[in-house]
Amino acid sequence: VHQTRSILSAHPRGHNLPADLLECLRACRECATTCTICADACMVDHQPRLRERCIRLNLDCAAICEATAEILARATAPVWTVLEAQLEACIAACAACAAECDHHSTKLEHCGICAEACREGERACRIVLAGTNMGGTGI
Amino acid sequence: VHQTRSILSAHPRGHNLPADLLECLRACRECATTCTICADACMVDHQPRLRERCIRLNLDCAAICEATAEILARATAPVWTVLEAQLEACIAACAACAAECDHHSTKLEHCGICAEACREGERACRIVLAGTNMGGTGI
Amino acid sequence: VHQTRSILSAHPRGHNLPADLLECLRACRECATTCTICADACMVDHQPRLRERCIRLNLDCAAICEATAEILARATAPVWTVLEAQLEACIAACAACAAECDHHSTKLEHCGICAEACREGERACRIVLAGTNMGGTGI
Amino acid sequence: VHQTRSILSAHPRGHNLPADLLECLRACRECATTCTICADACMVDHQPRLRERCIRLNLDCAAICEATAEILARATAPVWTVLEAQLEACIAACAACAAECDHHSTKLEHCGICAEACREGERACRIVLAGTNMGGTGI
Repeated sequence: VHQTRSILSAHPRGHNLPADLLECLRACRECATTCTICADACMVDHQPRLRERCIRLNLDCAAICEATAEILARATAPVWTVLEAQLEACIAACAACAAECDHHSTKLEHCGICAEACREGERACRIVLAGTNMGGTGI
Repeated sequence: VHQTRSILSAHPRGHNLPADLLECLRACRECATTCTICADACMVDHQPRLRERCIRLNLDCAAICEATAEILARATAPVWTVLEAQLEACIAACAACAAECDHHSTKLEHCGICAEACREGERACRIVLAGTNMGGTGI
Repeated sequence: VHQTRSILSAHPRGHNLPADLLECLRACRECATTCTICADACMVDHQPRLRERCIRLNLDCAAICEATAEILARATAPVWTVLEAQLEACIAACAACAAECDHHSTKLEHCGICAEACREGERACRIVLAGTNMGGTGI
Repeated sequence: VHQTRSILSAHPRGHNLPADLLECLRACRECATTCTICADACMVDHQPRLRERCIRLNLDCAAICEATAEILARATAPVWTVLEAQLEACIAACAACAAECDHHSTKLEHCGICAEACREGERACRIVLAGTNMGGTGI
């Protein structure tokens, strides 16, 4: 995230950004990619019925993390009700996907790695959400 | 939405889908495109300060509506907590963007049209959300 | 595409748009959704090996069609080399996905419907590409 | 890209992946985020006319890089004609956006950083494209 960090510092409204924003951006992007890869690996590895729920959650989580990352990347004129609701959706998706992938992690290594990325995504979103709620300097 | 309707009927898990799903899918896609176009038009038309908030909301709303439409399109193994949270995010984004665009609609025709598409998206998401909450046949 | 049509007419740079743009936008969005649904249905219906290639193409085609639709929606300061290359990618994805889905269309109705949407997407992109190449009024 | 690297190694079809795939995935994601941020910063900083072209290219490049990253993340049953065409589109978008941002880099630091990320994206796509063309072990 070398250039992401530099360009956020150079942004004229960089002071609008919540603390821990950069880590949340990074975690959401990493989780989106990991979920995309996990869905692809599950298609090959999984038992039919298990596969369905795991792939479904992976793909939903990837789509939500990507949207969240895109929204987090904008520093100009943020609207808190929108960001808050999207962070909540991202937390729900990451938590559900982490729980599902955990079930399969002893048999499927990729599910274990995906669960870890989802939990980092969930945690990072919770930290940004808490910071902005506490007010003062937030969005 | 001709083919979207047909392919949902041909889907082996089509019975998993909430009522009014197709209309919500259509409204989210239409809103995503309309917001993308409105952001682009606002860049040309708007006064600097007004422009910032309107474009920000347009772009956020487009990203959230696209993610929502993608998630709504899957009928296999839906996870209600995830879909519910994403619908809430979509409602928040559509409502905020509609309110902002309404302010400018007397001067900027494209903002008036965008507000209308956002309100249709908001309404359609609320209907799906209400239907699934009421239980029984829902996701 | 009611609001999409209206807002493109209200766009201050609407005259920049290539002919047949609206139909291409519509076809790309429809194809993106249809491919997303087909991937989801194939996960349930398909034989393992057939499933892999079909789902892969469906998901790639959906991602490319969505990006193409977003780019087509902007009328301000278009850059032809970028739009041309993205239309070529969209044509390649739609053609490959249509050919794959056609193979399965006698057994799987959803693949037949998806092939039809892909072919409409391919055709619409070719028309926009041809129009802009011929010059004059193009982007 | 810690988890992305691990999960690609754990993928049952990891051997399908072209050399330098991981770096290309990373560079496309970084470029997508950087372009999203640059568009947002340009909206605040730029002179009207310059702003239009720079924001347009930033947003198009972000959409194309995101689609490319998603496609690169799948290792199962890759279809070369599709990946090749999408890499070409990504090269065109990154090159055009880098050139535009370079123009403004002496006045606008964020444009200089964005140009650098675009050039890394372009280079990484060219390397993957060359490797797969040379045949043998490619996709």
